[in-house]
Amino acid sequence: MPEIRQDITTKEWVIIATERSKRPHDFKKKVERDGEQRLDPACPFCPGNEAMTAGDLYRRPHVLNVNGADWGVRVVPNKFPALIPQGSLERQVEGVSFHRLDGVGQHEVVIETPHHNRFMFDMDDVEVCSIIHTYRERYNQLKQDKRFKVILIFKNHGKAAGTSLEHPHSQIIAAPVLPAHIRNKYEIATAYFDDNERCIYCDVVQDEINAGTRIILQTNFFVAFHPFASQAPFETWIAPLRHRSSFGAISDDEIEDFSSVLRVVLKKLHIGLGNPDFNYVIHTAPLTDENKRYYLWHMQILPRLTTPAGFELGTGMSINTTLPEETAAFMRTVDIS
Amino acid sequence: MPEIRQDITTKEWVIIATERSKRPHDFKKKVERDGEQRLDPACPFCPGNEAMTAGDLYRRPHVLNVNGADWGVRVVPNKFPALIPQGSLERQVEGVSFHRLDGVGQHEVVIETPHHNRFMFDMDDVEVCSIIHTYRERYNQLKQDKRFKVILIFKNHGKAAGTSLEHPHSQIIAAPVLPAHIRNKYEIATAYFDDNERCIYCDVVQDEINAGTRIILQTNFFVAFHPFASQAPFETWIAPLRHRSSFGAISDDEIEDFSSVLRVVLKKLHIGLGNPDFNYVIHTAPLTDENKRYYLWHMQILPRLTTPAGFELGTGMSINTTLPEETAAFMRTVDIS
Repeated sequence: MPEIRQDITTKEWVIIATERSKRPHDFKKKVERDGEQRLDPACPFCPGNEAMTAGDLYRRPHVLNVNGADWGVRVVPNKFPALIPQGSLERQVEGVSFHRLDGVGQHEVVIETPHHNRFMFDMDDVEVCSIIHTYRERYNQLKQDKRFKVILIFKNHGKAAGTSLEHPHSQIIAAPVLPAHIRNKYEIATAYFDDNERCIYCDVVQDEINAGTRIILQTNFFVAFHPFASQAPFETWIAPLRHRSSFGAISDDEIEDFSSVLRVVLKKLHIGLGNPDFNYVIHTAPLTDENKRYYLWHMQILPRLTTPAGFELGTGMSINTTLPEETAAFMRTVDIS
Repeated sequence: MPEIRQDITTKEWVIIATERSKRPHDFKKKVERDGEQRLDPACPFCPGNEAMTAGDLYRRPHVLNVNGADWGVRVVPNKFPALIPQGSLERQVEGVSFHRLDGVGQHEVVIETPHHNRFMFDMDDVEVCSIIHTYRERYNQLKQDKRFKVILIFKNHGKAAGTSLEHPHSQIIAAPVLPAHIRNKYEIATAYFDDNERCIYCDVVQDEINAGTRIILQTNFFVAFHPFASQAPFETWIAPLRHRSSFGAISDDEIEDFSSVLRVVLKKLHIGLGNPDFNYVIHTAPLTDENKRYYLWHMQILPRLTTPAGFELGTGMSINTTLPEETAAFMRTVDIS
């Protein structure tokens, strides 16, 4: 019997289509990796090619001595930016329906390591930690610019996830408009707080912990789980156990804990599914409402195992072919030692 | 200079990223087609294999004598349905956040022709017409079932668009919940009508006609254009020129006109881009508000030329690498004779 489940944080429905269901291990493919190519002379992100990117916006020292680089993490402007720092924020309207403004914003690339193909799931915790510290630094720097309404930190890993460059990297975009999708979520969270004086996300996390069936792991500060209304197989959330609305306020202790959870989750996905392509994004409160009690920052990881098609395009609802209870149970058994 | 444009019907923003822009013809790839394989003995949708699908829900006579079939269009239940007709609509709630109901609904496949690989862009108008008549029949039949809140008619063409079966087909899903995405659009349209006593979509269509730069073609009853805030390269809308909220009310004359517009648009995409994978969906008013003055049914066609990635996942905003003014100009020049 198929089920329809609702994500109460978006009010969107998801169809769990058990009639076409796949077992979790059906998604596993053979791992294909190029092996240990530490340096690619043609790669703009490899040591020695620093001049191929515009000047560093931020740099952290290396934690491993790789490729003789004198850096561990670098942040540079995106060579093909979606948004640029110059321009006018004035809204221009033509007719009744054409609203536009200049593409003002910032688009950065986080080069995560000097090693050409050492991915997060290959790294030690201390290396991941350095990347998350970088995210916090750049987030808190970018939010000083009062033109920006939202900052998104995200990663595209693999071709099906929308990237062409292999070298481990993530991206940060600051935009001067509040996306309607985020505004809708925020309005739902606000209304829920008005009704209950509680954060809707904290309630979801507590419900997931109480249910237990979709939990992957839990630490002092974070919990990783496959949400009740997962949009796609192996969708994973990593959320703080204590209320924190803004990612920018993450503490050093929390970074250490989070880095370890993230590495374990990515390694379980890597081993369990055979190096799947994936995206992750850090959802955080809009910059104008950073310290409110009704939003919880969290990371969403979405392996790209299936293709959203016409139904998703037309309705915004997803069809998920696998029960999150089954994928979470599978993830718990994956041995990464 | 990149631009940020707003789709006023969803209030969502789109980044037109001209810094990474591609010319329209950059999307063209070589057409790879298997040629005229009229019949595939292993295909469940080919004549002779009618027993491989459950009993016909609807059937139309053939307009071309192909493969000796005694039918032209057939509608059958989907063998792996996302939703099924049996079950309870009662909402079950566990904890505060787990809302679910049985996956009640209907999921049908429209087999568009007895010919194994004669696609809409290969057809004559009369054949497309027969398919659109079928859509109307099934829509008006399904809406009799008062359990359903929304009916989506859609097509997935090609692997990147989420289909594995080659034989030309489309799908219809009736669902017992109103997707939040559709509810949001509907609320925007309602508020606009309250403010202006006009349909927001009709205003958009009129603005597009006045601007002219994004129009592909216009007939007595319909206009095809690349919307101002296109989410992706070559996104196309086909919309009625006169207000019609529900697709189910389309007249015979309008079907004839629409079929011709659809065929021309798909043929231009096919020739201009080299057989791209694409989805199309028919957006129509929710069944509970079918005859209101504030929604306009329309078809959205989305070629799958680029991959939505982490930014889209995290914000709901799209990054479109091409100006719709340029893609529309390109489409106008594509010769399909």
